[in-house]
Amino acid sequence: MSAHQDVKKVVLAYSGGLDTSVILRWLQKTYNCEVVTFTADLGQGEELEPARKKAEMFGVKEIFVEDLRETFVKDYVFPMFRANTVYEGQYLLGTSIARPLIAKRQIEIAEAVGADAVAHGATGKGNDQVRFELGYYALKPDVKVISPWREWELTSRTKLLEFAEENQIPVTKDKRGEAPFSVDANLLHSSSEGKLLEDPAVAPDEIVFQRTISPEAAPDKATEISIDFVNGDPVAINGVAMTPATLLTRLNELGRDNGIGRLDIVENRFVGMKSRGIYETPGGTILLAAHRSIESITLDREAAHLKDSIMPRYAELIYNGFWFSPERRMLQALIDASQHSVNGRVRMKLYKGNVVCVGRESPNSLYDTRVVTFEDDEGAYNQQDAQGFIKLNALRLRLGGQIGRRGGAL
Amino acid sequence: MSAHQDVKKVVLAYSGGLDTSVILRWLQKTYNCEVVTFTADLGQGEELEPARKKAEMFGVKEIFVEDLRETFVKDYVFPMFRANTVYEGQYLLGTSIARPLIAKRQIEIAEAVGADAVAHGATGKGNDQVRFELGYYALKPDVKVISPWREWELTSRTKLLEFAEENQIPVTKDKRGEAPFSVDANLLHSSSEGKLLEDPAVAPDEIVFQRTISPEAAPDKATEISIDFVNGDPVAINGVAMTPATLLTRLNELGRDNGIGRLDIVENRFVGMKSRGIYETPGGTILLAAHRSIESITLDREAAHLKDSIMPRYAELIYNGFWFSPERRMLQALIDASQHSVNGRVRMKLYKGNVVCVGRESPNSLYDTRVVTFEDDEGAYNQQDAQGFIKLNALRLRLGGQIGRRGGAL
Amino acid sequence: MSAHQDVKKVVLAYSGGLDTSVILRWLQKTYNCEVVTFTADLGQGEELEPARKKAEMFGVKEIFVEDLRETFVKDYVFPMFRANTVYEGQYLLGTSIARPLIAKRQIEIAEAVGADAVAHGATGKGNDQVRFELGYYALKPDVKVISPWREWELTSRTKLLEFAEENQIPVTKDKRGEAPFSVDANLLHSSSEGKLLEDPAVAPDEIVFQRTISPEAAPDKATEISIDFVNGDPVAINGVAMTPATLLTRLNELGRDNGIGRLDIVENRFVGMKSRGIYETPGGTILLAAHRSIESITLDREAAHLKDSIMPRYAELIYNGFWFSPERRMLQALIDASQHSVNGRVRMKLYKGNVVCVGRESPNSLYDTRVVTFEDDEGAYNQQDAQGFIKLNALRLRLGGQIGRRGGAL
Amino acid sequence: MSAHQDVKKVVLAYSGGLDTSVILRWLQKTYNCEVVTFTADLGQGEELEPARKKAEMFGVKEIFVEDLRETFVKDYVFPMFRANTVYEGQYLLGTSIARPLIAKRQIEIAEAVGADAVAHGATGKGNDQVRFELGYYALKPDVKVISPWREWELTSRTKLLEFAEENQIPVTKDKRGEAPFSVDANLLHSSSEGKLLEDPAVAPDEIVFQRTISPEAAPDKATEISIDFVNGDPVAINGVAMTPATLLTRLNELGRDNGIGRLDIVENRFVGMKSRGIYETPGGTILLAAHRSIESITLDREAAHLKDSIMPRYAELIYNGFWFSPERRMLQALIDASQHSVNGRVRMKLYKGNVVCVGRESPNSLYDTRVVTFEDDEGAYNQQDAQGFIKLNALRLRLGGQIGRRGGAL
Repeated sequence: MSAHQDVKKVVLAYSGGLDTSVILRWLQKTYNCEVVTFTADLGQGEELEPARKKAEMFGVKEIFVEDLRETFVKDYVFPMFRANTVYEGQYLLGTSIARPLIAKRQIEIAEAVGADAVAHGATGKGNDQVRFELGYYALKPDVKVISPWREWELTSRTKLLEFAEENQIPVTKDKRGEAPFSVDANLLHSSSEGKLLEDPAVAPDEIVFQRTISPEAAPDKATEISIDFVNGDPVAINGVAMTPATLLTRLNELGRDNGIGRLDIVENRFVGMKSRGIYETPGGTILLAAHRSIESITLDREAAHLKDSIMPRYAELIYNGFWFSPERRMLQALIDASQHSVNGRVRMKLYKGNVVCVGRESPNSLYDTRVVTFEDDEGAYNQQDAQGFIKLNALRLRLGGQIGRRGGAL
Repeated sequence: MSAHQDVKKVVLAYSGGLDTSVILRWLQKTYNCEVVTFTADLGQGEELEPARKKAEMFGVKEIFVEDLRETFVKDYVFPMFRANTVYEGQYLLGTSIARPLIAKRQIEIAEAVGADAVAHGATGKGNDQVRFELGYYALKPDVKVISPWREWELTSRTKLLEFAEENQIPVTKDKRGEAPFSVDANLLHSSSEGKLLEDPAVAPDEIVFQRTISPEAAPDKATEISIDFVNGDPVAINGVAMTPATLLTRLNELGRDNGIGRLDIVENRFVGMKSRGIYETPGGTILLAAHRSIESITLDREAAHLKDSIMPRYAELIYNGFWFSPERRMLQALIDASQHSVNGRVRMKLYKGNVVCVGRESPNSLYDTRVVTFEDDEGAYNQQDAQGFIKLNALRLRLGGQIGRRGGAL
Repeated sequence: MSAHQDVKKVVLAYSGGLDTSVILRWLQKTYNCEVVTFTADLGQGEELEPARKKAEMFGVKEIFVEDLRETFVKDYVFPMFRANTVYEGQYLLGTSIARPLIAKRQIEIAEAVGADAVAHGATGKGNDQVRFELGYYALKPDVKVISPWREWELTSRTKLLEFAEENQIPVTKDKRGEAPFSVDANLLHSSSEGKLLEDPAVAPDEIVFQRTISPEAAPDKATEISIDFVNGDPVAINGVAMTPATLLTRLNELGRDNGIGRLDIVENRFVGMKSRGIYETPGGTILLAAHRSIESITLDREAAHLKDSIMPRYAELIYNGFWFSPERRMLQALIDASQHSVNGRVRMKLYKGNVVCVGRESPNSLYDTRVVTFEDDEGAYNQQDAQGFIKLNALRLRLGGQIGRRGGAL
Repeated sequence: MSAHQDVKKVVLAYSGGLDTSVILRWLQKTYNCEVVTFTADLGQGEELEPARKKAEMFGVKEIFVEDLRETFVKDYVFPMFRANTVYEGQYLLGTSIARPLIAKRQIEIAEAVGADAVAHGATGKGNDQVRFELGYYALKPDVKVISPWREWELTSRTKLLEFAEENQIPVTKDKRGEAPFSVDANLLHSSSEGKLLEDPAVAPDEIVFQRTISPEAAPDKATEISIDFVNGDPVAINGVAMTPATLLTRLNELGRDNGIGRLDIVENRFVGMKSRGIYETPGGTILLAAHRSIESITLDREAAHLKDSIMPRYAELIYNGFWFSPERRMLQALIDASQHSVNGRVRMKLYKGNVVCVGRESPNSLYDTRVVTFEDDEGAYNQQDAQGFIKLNALRLRLGGQIGRRGGAL
């Protein structure tokens, strides 16, 4: 949308903060169109009502304020965790997984209110613009997309503040100065990046962390909990059944208190550059370890290895913004097909940044003491079978060796 | 080798312990053949000279005692770490990676002394028999393989001790009773499994751990070190250049002292059952985190993702015993081709079980502050490009949406 | 089953031919057990009733004779073709896909008649023994498996004929001499291998082919047909709806008459050696080309590429005998999730061994003339978008080039 | 390059045809810069000297005319064929593989003559723009890229011809009218697409084909040839050693005369839409079949399967234009590591569109008659080994079955 298109009504993902307030006004002025605001609670830990008030102040007539926490965890976070998803070996995708839900609700609202456009507040250098817009286009192919940060002239903090002042947008004192880094948060994680954090040779200051205490500050005594799983999803902590969002909230508290879930990485963005991010995913870090542990006794070997082998691609899809794509759905079908027997209880020890499984049990356990035992197995396993197994696995290597390709030389 | 074959000379992987001493004598008696012993130092932390003495005592004429620590780390451990290799998401393959080297030296010795057979002390239920024998067959296709545990009648501890007694094999007092679990060790790790540890619902006792102190017992103050990499391999700690084995030894000490590298998992064996293992890989755990960190700024995104996508298969190959195979060599060629630029220094913080990167720098860094910056980038990146990038990535989704497949519905 | 186990009742996969008749009698004599016969029509083109007669003659009391052709095509062949499955780039898996169904029915019959064992007539060198037995064990873990060819002493043709003679097993004249090669057939294909065909340097004689005429002998005039697909499966030829088996039978005739579907390859067996096979898959060859063609306009790019990327593994699983495995089911879930929109009609030209698509159309077509046209596209595609797309795809390569890694040098 | 940048000297990929002549003049006028022309013989079958003459006529001072056929086949086509590369199951990538070489030479010339920019004649809807520009940027990150078809106003044939007339660009009679479809050609293939060919429901007219006769028109008698391979590359036909380009030229003649190598597909472009292409790859089609055949007896099973599993990704990279990328080089390292033993001779029968292997032999053959034979194998293979092999492969399935997950149910 290089030139400003003809737009009648636009649904804006609106946080109520300074930046999206400026966007709101800028949309009204630039496009001369009606703006509908959509403010969602995904567990970012902020009040939503002030956003409604502000929107009213800007003359917005259709204001949507929604608590999406349960949907977020149930339909986005949990399906992703079924795959033990990590991007580039480490990142738990806390930001990536929230964008599709926001995009989906924006489009649903656009359909409901008869809007022809949607707008978001993501910058032109990041992944989030991609995630929002791929979602928009997949769900409503003819939608017009407005990405103010790629369009407008407010390219410096000063200009932004000037615009705010000229347009009677209140700027709280703490927003006058430049934030030392940029923050995103939802029920799964908080991320911090940019500015002060741009040099990957320098460790982040303790002040950066908002959602966890440091391992050093955590208690000297470990906390032990149990988590119950049904069909690959966690359903209870210490035997107490909980809704998805409640459960993740509780895990977040447990993680926070034990210094769990901090991550400081340099990652590769879909748009082509490397960036440095500081992530805090306290509950998710516990959940990942717990899910792996319950799978370790309930999942067949080849099922597990197949999941492992497609996981990097699945993670990449989510990171890149292709949640609403045929290939993500296909991979999800494969993943979900493996989780029916992932039931049982694991006990996890939380201690100063460490998450350690200290016990797993399941009605579906494939772990068979009779077979594996060092003791007499009463015929459950015939050691003679190993010889034929090895001989036939070796056959091709031996045939190769006989004609000079010893040791797998090619 | 169901019936006892005609064997003239056999090279035995001999530790000097009770079990392999029984095997030595049993081979002499059962096969009526000459036994050559091979005892290697792979960093297991035991004296080798007693093994030589014992072998002499059994009338062995050709005794090989070798320090293979540098070869082990340089040609096996480091190549594996170039791939950030973990089996089933967690296991650092400490036992698996040692077997090929032992097999290779046994075969080389067999060729040198004119032996027609080799023997090992691995049981018939485990992976190690596979790893040894696949190595043997790949390197010497016509070799005869003797696997006493699959052949003999000494199927209980009592029978084994009786045989020892009848054959003047000294049994130290601590060996009279049954060990509470089975141990394997080398410079990369120690493993403990079996018996006392067979119930995956029960956490291991502190006494199981031999090579690390617990996070709880580790110092309250973090230790910070730097590691330098050249072509993907670590070459120096805190700026001090070290040989591979020396460096890994030093990392092991650092890991041990900070409670790093413990792992308690249920894994899937190649021979078909699940087993529970307790692993301690102090230095390797630090090395993995450090290698990932230096790659994060030096490796191209798609190079990194390609490595991630083939890693599970590479890990499986090593776990299953296919080190000497065409497919492992091919994957190694791919991996090694990516490491020429993996150079630089990372700083790692070690604290009570945690390994955290607190800084990375490299002459080959692909991290470009000018591009990624939140500040003015002086034209290094054109935000307008993102629009075309998104539009074309979305095109197929939009075309699908137009004919009713919204959101990737198939 | 090295020693002859205690078996009460065994279900034998019985063709009625000489070999399985010998097996039948041998089972009765060796195991002194009751034998239940199971004879299935999978489209191999032989009468089944003679098998019933023979079984009666051997005193068999429980005789199962079943026409499984529709089940075979619907539940085994078609699901496999949804993935465009070929093993090692070429083989359409005609033998592999039939074994699981036979195994499944044998087990179901064993459960129904209270048998404790099953037996098959596959040799000890081939893949079929694996496919049968993995199926048996997966479906009835405690079943006893009898594999006569691995057990008995009838290791030469002469001994087999002697046994037949001694046991009043009728040997037709043409069976007295040794067959020049071994044949397997079902509705999907015929295979020929062994003996006369063992030298891969020598082309097979025309006499080997049983199910196709040669391209040279085929008509000089092409035949054109249409095939309709619903959810990825063929449902009609030339507009005439047909059941699965009827449709495949018709495709076989069309293929046969046009010299289509011959294959002469050296393949890699799961048991470790290379073998040479001559296959005829007339209908399947047409179906594969037709399915690819309908997918080419109905399947999203990334859905198609994902299918392509997992296909070799899926093919390997079927070839190796893991149809009844969690990993095959997971992959099938992924594949099937992609086929809902694979609907439409393709027209195929059949001519002297060639199968060429000469037209595809679909109500779900993703092919959009407005976008792709060389003519004016009326804004359906904005060529400017390509620039941003390229620039961001190039970004990482440029950053690499700037620090000396030009052209992807690492 | 939305606005016309400041360019001093540009290297144009110049064919001498009308379109690139218009581009040449347009560059001179629009950018007011010096144009250097680069015309390469990649086997497209056109005279190059006319292009030189025309360039001189336009006042071009630095004119590069080069015969790159041997380089093209040796360093691009053959490495790609080592992987048995096909895109989307069928396409031999004839256009894709030529673009990187052109891009590379353009950049080398730019460096040599001190040019700051490069230009190509590819349109804004196709893949070629991506392939050219990714190559440019990878090899010279700071190069300026001019893509006239995305920039100029000559968006219709009429405007283009007007521009030609106004600028004294000669237009031959046959170019006055609109071509009925667009053609690209090099030593590997010819492609035809667009306009007349846009409807995938309609078969192409015979007139579209330029490089092959139809199967129908091909001789009634088969032609048999032998091809020798060394390290995976073809080196001789019928025992006569040839250079790469000579050999491919000869295969093209053989393919053309036997109606081999036609392909009519709908493919998925990197830029997001489906397009329909008619390809003729006569020699390449023979080469692919021949290479697969020699691999079938010389390549280890797992080496072959590993190659198969990465091939789709490798093909996608080449199709998308990432020849000069770290990931392509890594995959090439893997592929090349497998080809050392791919030596020997195959005999191929060519008949009316069919390419059939009728014999393979190799000094490196892994096909072992002693092992595979139906006859007595003299102990080369122990059938008893199959039992253990099957039992351990079945173990996990049996354990699953015992707890109710029969047949791989999850």
